[in-house]
Amino acid sequence: MTNEPFKVAVAGLGTVGGGTVKVLQDHAEVIAKRCGRPVVISAVSALSKDGLDFDVSGYDWYGDALDMAENSDADMVVELIGGSDGIAKKVVEAALGAGKHVVTANKALVAHHGAGLDKLANDNGVSLNYEAAVAGGIPVIKSIREGLAGNNITKVQGILNGTCNYILTTMREEGRDFAEVLKDAQELGYAEADPTFDIEGVDAAHKLAILASVAFGVEINFKDVHVEGITHVSAVDIQFAEELGYRIKLLGVALRRNGTIEQRVHPAMVHKSAPISQVEGVFNSVVIDGDAVDTVVLVGRGAGELPTASAVVGDICDIARGLSVPTFSVPVSELEHVPTRPMGEHIGPYYVRLSLLDEPGVFADVAAVLRDHNVSMESMLQHGREEGKPVPVVMTTHETTEANMAAALDEIAALDKVTETPCMIRIEGA
Amino acid sequence: MTNEPFKVAVAGLGTVGGGTVKVLQDHAEVIAKRCGRPVVISAVSALSKDGLDFDVSGYDWYGDALDMAENSDADMVVELIGGSDGIAKKVVEAALGAGKHVVTANKALVAHHGAGLDKLANDNGVSLNYEAAVAGGIPVIKSIREGLAGNNITKVQGILNGTCNYILTTMREEGRDFAEVLKDAQELGYAEADPTFDIEGVDAAHKLAILASVAFGVEINFKDVHVEGITHVSAVDIQFAEELGYRIKLLGVALRRNGTIEQRVHPAMVHKSAPISQVEGVFNSVVIDGDAVDTVVLVGRGAGELPTASAVVGDICDIARGLSVPTFSVPVSELEHVPTRPMGEHIGPYYVRLSLLDEPGVFADVAAVLRDHNVSMESMLQHGREEGKPVPVVMTTHETTEANMAAALDEIAALDKVTETPCMIRIEGA
Repeated sequence: MTNEPFKVAVAGLGTVGGGTVKVLQDHAEVIAKRCGRPVVISAVSALSKDGLDFDVSGYDWYGDALDMAENSDADMVVELIGGSDGIAKKVVEAALGAGKHVVTANKALVAHHGAGLDKLANDNGVSLNYEAAVAGGIPVIKSIREGLAGNNITKVQGILNGTCNYILTTMREEGRDFAEVLKDAQELGYAEADPTFDIEGVDAAHKLAILASVAFGVEINFKDVHVEGITHVSAVDIQFAEELGYRIKLLGVALRRNGTIEQRVHPAMVHKSAPISQVEGVFNSVVIDGDAVDTVVLVGRGAGELPTASAVVGDICDIARGLSVPTFSVPVSELEHVPTRPMGEHIGPYYVRLSLLDEPGVFADVAAVLRDHNVSMESMLQHGREEGKPVPVVMTTHETTEANMAAALDEIAALDKVTETPCMIRIEGA
Repeated sequence: MTNEPFKVAVAGLGTVGGGTVKVLQDHAEVIAKRCGRPVVISAVSALSKDGLDFDVSGYDWYGDALDMAENSDADMVVELIGGSDGIAKKVVEAALGAGKHVVTANKALVAHHGAGLDKLANDNGVSLNYEAAVAGGIPVIKSIREGLAGNNITKVQGILNGTCNYILTTMREEGRDFAEVLKDAQELGYAEADPTFDIEGVDAAHKLAILASVAFGVEINFKDVHVEGITHVSAVDIQFAEELGYRIKLLGVALRRNGTIEQRVHPAMVHKSAPISQVEGVFNSVVIDGDAVDTVVLVGRGAGELPTASAVVGDICDIARGLSVPTFSVPVSELEHVPTRPMGEHIGPYYVRLSLLDEPGVFADVAAVLRDHNVSMESMLQHGREEGKPVPVVMTTHETTEANMAAALDEIAALDKVTETPCMIRIEGA
């Protein structure tokens, strides 16, 4: 292997870009030892130099990242601009097309265009690494793609969005409502001014689609991820969860069985004894089930300047060392196309909260509907009663199909004495 | 890169050897895709073919593993014989000397002879991988050496011995004593007939020495690990721990500060809110603190046929792909020699249980000794009293040096009214 310096061009000098520059600067000496060659920044690109709290005077400056991707003499472009399309995509395509390796933290880009970028990287004999796109500093892509290469992976699930986990944790700890906690999170910098991508589950879905592709060796398929956010999780459900021995988490779950892939992001009741239920606040966690390793759990910071930069620099070092691994575990030509299992065929237990007028016979009506749809109740909980007034009634069911559950809930919602749309939350890993 | 088959010779066909052969056989097709070339077993070695529950008829059979290491045409020897010296060491040295890569699960070998083997591998231009030697199936060496390559790692700690963790978990859950639970563990196959290496902390110390070397880029130094086992942990201490909000775990802790390395294995009180305290039974866990990533926690099975084989096969795949990483993170010539901090200079809080004759003034004597040695009490707990009889008294202290604590305990032990040798357990991460 060569001892020539490995030259890196960094596109985007925001939070993660700045962190990456700092880590490469501060640890240049030990990184050179670890990689067997110096890893140097040769060029950087951003809209402006204003407000940078690190020195970029030694690097070629490009006002246009695309220009840098095409024309700089770097061995690699590190794309930290963000966004699934627009300039980020152009920069990555140009870099790969010019025979430069690419490292990116851009989950939206990889989720939407991973298959095409994989092909482009392959055609140009370069690598596309994206550890930082999933679960921040946690080395989860590396663990799946390399450490667990001897496994047939059957399931990957995780807490993939720190904003949602922070909100759900705070709602539980402080008994407060979603809207209020979201506002605080925005003030604390844990949620963006426009939090849609986070709280609607889209960000977690990007990450889940990437995980599913790497874990199962299938072509990435973001559009078929079933996505529900946390905006409808209420303080009362969190309370009931506690009472039933669960915590509510926004989970991403991907599993492969019977020739189909199930990919879903939604709030889930997770039993308190499950390791993932203990992961609180802004932390992320990924749980991997493999046929040899059994279960591996990884926990760490899912976002932030330096944790994310840690993952970016890990990727850079791998490529500087000469490591080449297929982008999504197997070569692009070998990626399987596996049908998505329709959500109606999902099988699992459910938590259901109803608002019922407390009158004789009302529960019998509900029970009859469940029976008609082959849904079997596991437990029922009702606190307080006030005749003629609506009271919350909570049930958990045994395993049933989502189609059965949905049909039963439609019918229950239409009952006279049901005063609100029923709230349904899937129970996971129970 | 070549597409030629990568040929593997497996030395030792016991539990882990058998698991490795099975994983390589069962997943041959997908492993070839992942590695870009077939990974084939070309030779195997064991004392006898009796009792093997897998087919070895297609492989060259060697009754002598050393002969195989020297003379087979394999690209790599996988050493799964075990033991720090004897045949395992000879086989690894012969393989490296013959220009063959080596993968091993042998923690004792790496802990005792890692530095020399590293040099031998380096001189012969081959790799020595040992993921399976630490924490079974958890990809912890890979995470530290590669995924966190951008970090200055300051601390690594973990539950590194599943036998001890199983015993401590069972003692707590069932309120039973060490000797009894050990016997059960032996019957269940969770502890060996001769459990010394596990229960005395030696096995965990082997793993800790390896982790410290990889994490800090220092020459491996097993002999300076401070080692205490779990044989003196009593049911009563587990009960008091519970009451104080702690769980007792056999921890391995390695940290680098002020130009020294601290490496220690001992029972520790870990606060229940710490993720590692939730790791129960035979599971292992490693917690890594890096200056960029903050904290990463990994949890999984630390032993067993297939989990360990998962790590072995991950290592094999890395080498088959052409990945070459310095054995202990940096090249052998760059490994630092950092002095070990004497245990007397360890600083932390302590749990102390005394057996005191319940007489007026006795506690004042104890308090005076603590004061004289500059040890400051944080809490004191005494249940029940019977005048003139010995009662257990439990204290926790604020941070102090181990030297102060030890001197105070020596003096306390000599007091008239102290009826048993005091029990001291370090409090960790409090």
